[in-house]
Amino acid sequence: MTKVCQIGLFGLGTVGTGTARILLDQAELLARRAGSRLELARVCDRHPDDLRGLPLDPGRVTADVRDLLDDPAIRVFVELIGGIEPARSVVLQAIAAGKHVVTANKALLAEHGSEIFAAAAEAGVAVGFEASVGGGIPVIKTLKEGLVANRIETVAGIMNGTANYVLTRMTDDGLAFDEALAEAQRLGYAEADPTFDVDGIDTAHKLAILAALAFATPVGPADIATEGISRLTPLDITFAAEFGYRIKLLAIARHRPEGLELRVHPTMIPADHLLARVEGAANAFYLVGDAVGQVLLHGPGAGQMPTGSAVVADIVDIARGIAAGVPPCGGPFEALAPVPLRPMEALVCRYYFRFSAKDRPGVLARIAGILGDNGISIAAVIQKGRRSRAAVPIVMLTHEAEEARVRRALARIDELDVVTDPTTVIRIEDPATLAASANAEVTPA
Amino acid sequence: MTKVCQIGLFGLGTVGTGTARILLDQAELLARRAGSRLELARVCDRHPDDLRGLPLDPGRVTADVRDLLDDPAIRVFVELIGGIEPARSVVLQAIAAGKHVVTANKALLAEHGSEIFAAAAEAGVAVGFEASVGGGIPVIKTLKEGLVANRIETVAGIMNGTANYVLTRMTDDGLAFDEALAEAQRLGYAEADPTFDVDGIDTAHKLAILAALAFATPVGPADIATEGISRLTPLDITFAAEFGYRIKLLAIARHRPEGLELRVHPTMIPADHLLARVEGAANAFYLVGDAVGQVLLHGPGAGQMPTGSAVVADIVDIARGIAAGVPPCGGPFEALAPVPLRPMEALVCRYYFRFSAKDRPGVLARIAGILGDNGISIAAVIQKGRRSRAAVPIVMLTHEAEEARVRRALARIDELDVVTDPTTVIRIEDPATLAASANAEVTPA
Ligand SMILES: NC(=O)c1ccc[n+]([C@@H]2O[C@H](COP(=O)([O-])OP(=O)(O)OC[C@H]3O[C@@H](n4cnc5c(N)ncnc54)[C@H](OP(=O)(O)O)[C@@H]3O)[C@@H](O)[C@H]2O)c1
Ligand SMILES: NC(=O)c1ccc[n+]([C@@H]2O[C@H](COP(=O)([O-])OP(=O)(O)OC[C@H]3O[C@@H](n4cnc5c(N)ncnc54)[C@H](OP(=O)(O)O)[C@@H]3O)[C@@H](O)[C@H]2O)c1
Repeated sequence: MTKVCQIGLFGLGTVGTGTARILLDQAELLARRAGSRLELARVCDRHPDDLRGLPLDPGRVTADVRDLLDDPAIRVFVELIGGIEPARSVVLQAIAAGKHVVTANKALLAEHGSEIFAAAAEAGVAVGFEASVGGGIPVIKTLKEGLVANRIETVAGIMNGTANYVLTRMTDDGLAFDEALAEAQRLGYAEADPTFDVDGIDTAHKLAILAALAFATPVGPADIATEGISRLTPLDITFAAEFGYRIKLLAIARHRPEGLELRVHPTMIPADHLLARVEGAANAFYLVGDAVGQVLLHGPGAGQMPTGSAVVADIVDIARGIAAGVPPCGGPFEALAPVPLRPMEALVCRYYFRFSAKDRPGVLARIAGILGDNGISIAAVIQKGRRSRAAVPIVMLTHEAEEARVRRALARIDELDVVTDPTTVIRIEDPATLAASANAEVTPA
Repeated sequence: MTKVCQIGLFGLGTVGTGTARILLDQAELLARRAGSRLELARVCDRHPDDLRGLPLDPGRVTADVRDLLDDPAIRVFVELIGGIEPARSVVLQAIAAGKHVVTANKALLAEHGSEIFAAAAEAGVAVGFEASVGGGIPVIKTLKEGLVANRIETVAGIMNGTANYVLTRMTDDGLAFDEALAEAQRLGYAEADPTFDVDGIDTAHKLAILAALAFATPVGPADIATEGISRLTPLDITFAAEFGYRIKLLAIARHRPEGLELRVHPTMIPADHLLARVEGAANAFYLVGDAVGQVLLHGPGAGQMPTGSAVVADIVDIARGIAAGVPPCGGPFEALAPVPLRPMEALVCRYYFRFSAKDRPGVLARIAGILGDNGISIAAVIQKGRRSRAAVPIVMLTHEAEEARVRRALARIDELDVVTDPTTVIRIEDPATLAASANAEVTPA
């Protein structure tokens, strides 16, 4: 075996270090599996003197990415610096130079995926992006290849480990949101600025990538109705449990006759559903295909070695193609074409509301009246103990209602003088709706 | 797009019909994704007149498999008749004729995989076998490609939907084994002869295939210590629940310094573990890689359309390679080489025993004495109510013990005159042991 596939690595941070470690430590195993030796030819990082304890030849480490782009021997360019610029320009330059690209950059692909995939298709190079969603879980490969025989009907899941860690601690140990988040930060589970994670933005980036792939349509974060978890309280979690639910930050892309439904928000799911059982920093992806039915993938959604595992899997796929004499093609296997999106206002589901109201007679009647005016019918109400003059929580579960009506009703309710804070809204997901598939079946043999 | 990939389908039963339906119904979608039109050129079945409601040209359906083997235009030969012969000979003939092969035949691959993969490697053709394990769940692709950067440390799971259905009904509804099995048969979940399913043989076939792939070693069913579920009673399930466990028919292949551990048997797992939550006819695969850590895949392990989904995914992979001008290679990506196996007698775990003993004074002391003589220490004992002169169940949980000692002790105990029936043994799986990995980590970001 004398074939060599030369790799240029841009960004030696968390994921870059994990990727380099696997390439160096498992060189022999990977050469056998890839059909060629995967050589870490050059590494570029802002801090070329810090080798992160890796057995790298310092002569191969540079601060100038041109050293990678201009080296014609480098066939695979691995972008792991993160962020939009200069990542976008550099990736486009690598593609223009005829290099295959592997990236873990979900923000870049969510915002500029169409541009990058189009450039790659034109240049006849591959863009591997397994690591951009779900860390070490091969969800991209499953959608692109494993379920290739299916029309995908639903892609849903828990796609951000930080948010899920925070919710798990709130659920299992009754921590407040701020406490749980501070702990996640202490443990290195959350960035100093956790906004992307807890506000659902990172989740929306990942959903944008998966939805583009599953439904062959260009989807950007702006197309996704996105709400975070920062307004949830232990009270919501306790009430959810009383009704038999757990709260998760769910991403949902669902193909509907009226258009594609795209949303990220805290969601109540029945406590015995597999998605409700995803604990701590794990991720899970729930896919429904018309032939296969429901498939769930569960695992580490981030971390140095798991994400490195996904980056190296993409490198091996590309190297195998090169070794066979033919570059594997694409990004997504289909040209992206716009499909109609279903507006969030058209969503129909059951809702949980927690109203913060002054403890005065008639409050419940006024709230219920406004809901009734908007055609929203109440399935259950809980109003626990009176607490002197402070605001009290009133919790309600509705029957199925339309999001547009809910928004209109809540706008009026939140203006009432007796209502002290904006109402907390959690949508309730019905597993049967999530699983609905034209001709899926589950029978064993 | 004018490229065509001609397919020959051998066996138009459950899976064959699902495969044909997808190829015919989704022709356009598949052509886009595969880069060539997938043409169902010929179909062979013992009953060529029964078209199973498919829009097949009767002129393309034959009872003679030679019509497929001798047609040089057929590039992909899909074997879906099941069983060892004539499947084995026909597959070898197809390979010798330079055709790529796709098969769902776990029995064939478990028994003769090495022979078939070697022949394919020599002929330079691919053998796709995704459908042989886990129905529609892409577990083969995940092992071969998604986790290619990993040394696999553990492959475990629930690999037979029938057995899991029976156990689920026994657990959730207190049914006896026979009742649950009869129901599974009524519902079409179990064959008329369910031996393969409930005795763990089908599970062992699947484990053999996965272990060969994950550990690049030839493994046959005879290498796997296999026990079925037919001796379990609702009592065992109730006791397990009291101790916080659920009973599943688990397949486990674990890489250990002393050798490869291979076993299929009823297993107690903590009730909150994801594997304990796999319900009904579903399958689940639990994979541990040194870089990625723990990944779980869950979904339909069988059924016409899910299994057809996996068959077609293999066909598309092969067609893509052909369309690109290069046939994809292999079966497993590495040549199989023997590795030492760890004998079942060397297993160390905790055990559940249910003794059937006459209700006489001193029985417990005699049993405990024999266990003590063999160095097996007891963690808990339950002996419920005395029931006149009938045999009573005595249930015990042990601390960690070695299988060899357990077998010695039970052989003596089962010979006691006061013991009326062979002792029921259930091994208790510690999730930490199952998850143990050299450098796995799970951190989010
Ligand atoms: N961490 C995870 O678990 C994870 C999981 C999935 C996906 N991802 C994605 O993977 C990518 C990398 O994440 P990460 O966690 O590895 O980030 P990181 O630890 O911050 O690593 C980025 C590295 O690139 C360097 N860098 C940044 N801009 C550069 C430039 N213009 N020129 C040269 N070097 C530059 C950084 O140097 P400085 O430190 O000096 O800026 C740092 O060493 C991101 O797109 C992220 O979203 C990460
Ligand atoms: N069913 C599942 O859900 C499932 C899931 C995973 C894997 N598999 C595997 O897939 C394979 C097929 O299973 P299946 O359930 O589809 O079996 P099946 O329903 O019995 O189908 C087999 C078909 O092949 C025909 N056949 C058998 N021997 C033949 C011969 N020598 N020449 C021509 N036709 C012949 C049979 O005809 P007759 O009926 O006249 O014999 C029948 O139509 C097996 O290896 C099985 O283990 C099945």
